[in-house]
Amino acid sequence: MKATRLEAFSDGVIAIIITIMVLELKVPEEHSAAGLLAMLPLFLSYALSFLTVAIYWANHHHLIHLVKRVNGSILWLNMNLLFWLSLMPFVTAYLGEHHVEKLPVALYGAVGVACGVSYYFLRHAISRQTVDDPRLCALHSRMLRKNRIAIGLGVALVPAAYLSIWLSLALILTPSLMYFVPDREVEKLAHE
Amino acid sequence: MKATRLEAFSDGVIAIIITIMVLELKVPEEHSAAGLLAMLPLFLSYALSFLTVAIYWANHHHLIHLVKRVNGSILWLNMNLLFWLSLMPFVTAYLGEHHVEKLPVALYGAVGVACGVSYYFLRHAISRQTVDDPRLCALHSRMLRKNRIAIGLGVALVPAAYLSIWLSLALILTPSLMYFVPDREVEKLAHE
Amino acid sequence: MKATRLEAFSDGVIAIIITIMVLELKVPEEHSAAGLLAMLPLFLSYALSFLTVAIYWANHHHLIHLVKRVNGSILWLNMNLLFWLSLMPFVTAYLGEHHVEKLPVALYGAVGVACGVSYYFLRHAISRQTVDDPRLCALHSRMLRKNRIAIGLGVALVPAAYLSIWLSLALILTPSLMYFVPDREVEKLAHE
Amino acid sequence: MKATRLEAFSDGVIAIIITIMVLELKVPEEHSAAGLLAMLPLFLSYALSFLTVAIYWANHHHLIHLVKRVNGSILWLNMNLLFWLSLMPFVTAYLGEHHVEKLPVALYGAVGVACGVSYYFLRHAISRQTVDDPRLCALHSRMLRKNRIAIGLGVALVPAAYLSIWLSLALILTPSLMYFVPDREVEKLAHE
Repeated sequence: MKATRLEAFSDGVIAIIITIMVLELKVPEEHSAAGLLAMLPLFLSYALSFLTVAIYWANHHHLIHLVKRVNGSILWLNMNLLFWLSLMPFVTAYLGEHHVEKLPVALYGAVGVACGVSYYFLRHAISRQTVDDPRLCALHSRMLRKNRIAIGLGVALVPAAYLSIWLSLALILTPSLMYFVPDREVEKLAHE
Repeated sequence: MKATRLEAFSDGVIAIIITIMVLELKVPEEHSAAGLLAMLPLFLSYALSFLTVAIYWANHHHLIHLVKRVNGSILWLNMNLLFWLSLMPFVTAYLGEHHVEKLPVALYGAVGVACGVSYYFLRHAISRQTVDDPRLCALHSRMLRKNRIAIGLGVALVPAAYLSIWLSLALILTPSLMYFVPDREVEKLAHE
Repeated sequence: MKATRLEAFSDGVIAIIITIMVLELKVPEEHSAAGLLAMLPLFLSYALSFLTVAIYWANHHHLIHLVKRVNGSILWLNMNLLFWLSLMPFVTAYLGEHHVEKLPVALYGAVGVACGVSYYFLRHAISRQTVDDPRLCALHSRMLRKNRIAIGLGVALVPAAYLSIWLSLALILTPSLMYFVPDREVEKLAHE
Repeated sequence: MKATRLEAFSDGVIAIIITIMVLELKVPEEHSAAGLLAMLPLFLSYALSFLTVAIYWANHHHLIHLVKRVNGSILWLNMNLLFWLSLMPFVTAYLGEHHVEKLPVALYGAVGVACGVSYYFLRHAISRQTVDDPRLCALHSRMLRKNRIAIGLGVALVPAAYLSIWLSLALILTPSLMYFVPDREVEKLAHE
């Protein structure tokens, strides 16, 4: 299997994930401004998840470009990542409808951690294909370290929901935002 | 990242947006002609949005062909455009279910303006890649001016909903229709 | 715009249409065999529409291969076809839920006719690009005639729902089935 | 029609099937841990189906690479496979909502068998294109035998639901798991 095939399928799944989340925005019964304002948390939750999934898409794209050959591990670790990402629409709706509650915030954070861990395993498997290339090795090590920090942050945020929901909510995007700007060196290497 | 990759992902997202809107057309409880007629506003709202999104797709396609290299700005300004477009299914259902009310009409118009502004920023970022090509510069200037007019029209239509809903509804497609025929020169330049 | 781009977008939209129809199959409240049997009409309606849309996909694919250059007419006539096809999930659910009623059967037939007419206009616009190729001209003429017969059959079936629902239902797939086997000559020409 | 076109369409449909299943995970009314725990069967059912569809995707990809030319049989046998796979979201929700009942378990198994049989017919049609290549012949024979075993297992599991639901549930993934690791020789041949 070529990496382009795996990427096309992943792109398709991610495009669907990012778009069907909007189906959770149900039209309010009444057309008053109050009815619309009551949807604000759901809307913010949607915007948050849209950004998270978009960041994953951009980084996933660069990661897959470093794949030499798709083997069984990479195929299934990629599927594992898509599985956890596919739970985003559910936790988004859960967060949006019960927004100032501890459990939804913690669950949203937990799925975020699961995505981060899945991404870590995927990169790890990909990095093993290029152990003889010192430049790629150094790059993967650096990115895996960054990934571990992001996961650690995420893990810290889940219990934080039980201390202060607002703090947890304020920081919930932090691990993803660390990846907002795709690593330039990855990009350079991918296109050499 | 190559422009083709960004385009394929955008195409996927737009194809999903344009298609899932139909899920808002719920089957009426009763099978009488009256039950079906009651759906007419929802159907018209769907047709309106289908046309709007289709126009965006055709123009977006031509715009992306002028991209030299996908950088961070273009990546995220494109994601921003997709985000606002992804709200179309929601405002379509909102407009269709509460059609002769001011707020749904104004909200539909406001999301249209947000899409127009997002498109403007995207083109602006793309135009900065070719400042040394006088022909492309002139083209982008002309298209940005047209975009500003469309945004201005859209901005005027939002408060118009509070004066006359029917006038606002009658004109709601105008900014999009200005783009019904993709600019021929863009097309020519894109394929040179 | 290249024909491949138009085809990829159309393929995406058709893939979504054919798949989201299954969302209309709602899980019955009770898990008894009776509850499942009550879904049979909805299931048959789904199978019917899956086949219809699949036939359109196969033929659309061959038709687009005869496009020399995507112009405005072809772009918008193709969008028009996608619009009517996108109503299939709605009429499928409508037919499945009110299956022995005249209006749903007639509406299902009417949307089928609208798709057939849209396909006709699309082929007509495509045929005008190759008026100087006698072999393609003859082929298009033959296919347009076949299309007119299919539309005629469909038009006859709509009022038939008001005479005998069962007759109308029995014949509802006939116009599509005429296209079950894509024309071999089209295929040959497309790949020369 | 080229095999790549058939594959791209199939990939699109499979990507949608695998993703829209998550829409069946409805947000619980209450945000208590109990409300979330009550969703566990639905979640497990979703995970089960995600894995099954992912396994089909990986194997389908390799199978299509052995296609020489897409003829009518292959086109329609592939559509037939997609049709049965498209029922996965329905049986997944049915299993998840009525999980310890016989009928949902049996129906889930039955759709699995239908997918297995469809896959068998598809491979059989593809194998007939290369009867003069002894290596491919041997490979197809071997894979068809494996497929028959998987179908046999599936067929045995359906009535087993009426003896012991838990046994049936425990074994329900077995036929798919036989295909977890795509056959290496298929992969080798496909890329020669």
